[in-house]
Amino acid sequence: MIPADLLLTDVGEVATLARGAVPRTGAAMRELSLVHDASIAVADGRIVWVGPAGRRARSVRLAPGGSVVSADGGVVVPGFVDAHTHVLFAGDRAFELPLKVGGASYAEIARRGGGLYSTVRATRAASDAVLMRESGERLRRMVAYGSTSIEVKSGYALDVPGELRLLRMIPRLAEQLGVTLVPTFLGAHAVPETYRGRTDDYVELLVRQALPAVAREGLARFCDVFCEPGFFTVRQSERLLRAALGLGLAVKVHAEEFVLSGGARLAARLRATSAEHLLRATAEDRRRLAAAGVTAVLLPLTAFTASPARRSPGREMVDAGVPVALGTDCSPNSWVESMPLVLAHAVHGGGLTPAEALTAATVNAAHAVGLEGGGRLVAGAPADFAVFSTDSVDQLGYRFDAIPSAVYRQGKRVSPS
Amino acid sequence: MIPADLLLTDVGEVATLARGAVPRTGAAMRELSLVHDASIAVADGRIVWVGPAGRRARSVRLAPGGSVVSADGGVVVPGFVDAHTHVLFAGDRAFELPLKVGGASYAEIARRGGGLYSTVRATRAASDAVLMRESGERLRRMVAYGSTSIEVKSGYALDVPGELRLLRMIPRLAEQLGVTLVPTFLGAHAVPETYRGRTDDYVELLVRQALPAVAREGLARFCDVFCEPGFFTVRQSERLLRAALGLGLAVKVHAEEFVLSGGARLAARLRATSAEHLLRATAEDRRRLAAAGVTAVLLPLTAFTASPARRSPGREMVDAGVPVALGTDCSPNSWVESMPLVLAHAVHGGGLTPAEALTAATVNAAHAVGLEGGGRLVAGAPADFAVFSTDSVDQLGYRFDAIPSAVYRQGKRVSPS
Repeated sequence: MIPADLLLTDVGEVATLARGAVPRTGAAMRELSLVHDASIAVADGRIVWVGPAGRRARSVRLAPGGSVVSADGGVVVPGFVDAHTHVLFAGDRAFELPLKVGGASYAEIARRGGGLYSTVRATRAASDAVLMRESGERLRRMVAYGSTSIEVKSGYALDVPGELRLLRMIPRLAEQLGVTLVPTFLGAHAVPETYRGRTDDYVELLVRQALPAVAREGLARFCDVFCEPGFFTVRQSERLLRAALGLGLAVKVHAEEFVLSGGARLAARLRATSAEHLLRATAEDRRRLAAAGVTAVLLPLTAFTASPARRSPGREMVDAGVPVALGTDCSPNSWVESMPLVLAHAVHGGGLTPAEALTAATVNAAHAVGLEGGGRLVAGAPADFAVFSTDSVDQLGYRFDAIPSAVYRQGKRVSPS
Repeated sequence: MIPADLLLTDVGEVATLARGAVPRTGAAMRELSLVHDASIAVADGRIVWVGPAGRRARSVRLAPGGSVVSADGGVVVPGFVDAHTHVLFAGDRAFELPLKVGGASYAEIARRGGGLYSTVRATRAASDAVLMRESGERLRRMVAYGSTSIEVKSGYALDVPGELRLLRMIPRLAEQLGVTLVPTFLGAHAVPETYRGRTDDYVELLVRQALPAVAREGLARFCDVFCEPGFFTVRQSERLLRAALGLGLAVKVHAEEFVLSGGARLAARLRATSAEHLLRATAEDRRRLAAAGVTAVLLPLTAFTASPARRSPGREMVDAGVPVALGTDCSPNSWVESMPLVLAHAVHGGGLTPAEALTAATVNAAHAVGLEGGGRLVAGAPADFAVFSTDSVDQLGYRFDAIPSAVYRQGKRVSPS
């Protein structure tokens, strides 16, 4: 008899995602390993048992002082893993919208004080306290929407001390908010204004000064790069990512968002953990990503705001055998906090089934951010899960604006708090 | 000195929408009549005063037993008016999504038990208690997202007693939930299966039996029709709507959603209160709607799920001088409850500015559902408003998944309850 300190009972349906290789591809993305009329047992912050309620008493007993919580017949899914965010920034850019609507170009918006560099200026100018508070509010709402693990990229400082400052905040935010945060170094988010026309020099600065410090202090698990014309070429991206790999970091690539420029092929060649965005990726790109086992991190809300087709290429990727993961891409340019909304956009826009979207937002997203074994509700996994007051798992992705009734991380309720 | 029974203080910014003709068109859609550092005074469920906090004491005193509530520096906007919903139905249609993803046609989905008629079967079969509970849960969440007035269409019974049953539930739901509901008769949502090939006969049934009963009992304020090939022709729509006008109902038209078929021109010719969807409307349609003063009720989430362009024609409508309103179009086909999400889609997809979207979701939506004077925070108007923990009104429409921290209707907090 396993002792449990938390028993979740009256679970109408739980998606355990127990069975299958990680990451999931193809038809395996539709296999949720559902258990109906279930109970979930937790001890020391980890799942110890999941199964039909009727069999629970044979396997699990409640430890003295343990608690029993009813899910009221609702649905339980693994806490979402948001595989791609730029959540560490100061200020906002709402003021750009009337300019965009009026047809202003990116250059015109920049002249009027907008664009990515305006967020860089605001972020550089913000104190640690302000950055922690503003980013923390976003992260807290992300948790309320069901995310228990969130990738966080640096990238709005674009200088060595500033990027290191951002990365150092991430474990402090994780501790403060009770959420798992995975830090990604994105010093190569853009070329800083002071390096305009000298991109190679900036790449060398990152390679020689920033990356060694990131590796030495263990500040990031991944190195990412914005591989796109006007940002970093394939050659420059490769220089940076090979240096990161040499220092023991894993790598990601922002690829084929605006223009087809070779980032996906680079990701395949380097066997990167993931390639992200991929709005312009070709069939050949998909074949290479699938062959190299690179996860496609798709960002449906950014596709909605930025791409003419307003859709992320979910269906094509799954059909090509590429493992697909999802993220909010929360940034000042596309301020999205809700993973359930991301699932709905991935389904109604990107052509995933609700089951594929859930797989992409849990087990595959955990893989994409290096949390192997995460995003599943199996014995030994962290007890990170979200409860929804609906009667079947496929309501996620179907409904646009679902909100969990409760969110648990490591067996403790983190929302509503 | 005006006595108030509720004082909302510490309002960082309030959009009163006080100034200008109703409905707003063109540049007037961007004029929110903002007051900064404001207080709002309420008596007997109505706004009695809105102004700068510093001037409040000269005009308003707190009545004995009255209460003071701080908005903590947040933003206050009029409660949203959701101008178009099909919220009265039973069941759901999540099971269709994998079929759609697999490329099944509408006919194939219908053969497999899906489509609109499956919701008709489920709705006809559901008891009053089940329909009230399921619809009530949706409406309660809509209120939590900030909607204080919601248009509700019948249309999932498609027989005379069933349609009347649905309409009779609407005032009961309004009473139960503390929300203003505007009933619209949409017996002409589709041709019932038993009338296949006999659409004219069904229209006559609606004209001779349903409409007189609706008018006699005062069950609906509007009559609406799905004017689209395969549903109702322009001639059949006109027959129905003229009969409704003759009985004192105002009229709406579901127009130009899938195919350009003349519904918008019919709406202009009849001087309908609104034409809805309008995804295929032409420049000439826009000119006619503007000239006739017909409000375009746009439904951005349905555009996202159903139209190849995935956008509602907001920018074109405003630029053509058509008054624009917004709605969720919540239905089993596009299950959306959040008006803040609708605003964001209208901005990021439909090219409205945040101010235009807010106007479309408040004062213009109130006009579109016959709540003249609603959707504004001015003395004498119902004290229906939503509080958001942001520092400026333009965060609505900019952020995708904002949720109010509090919602008030007629001066009483209705969410969180």
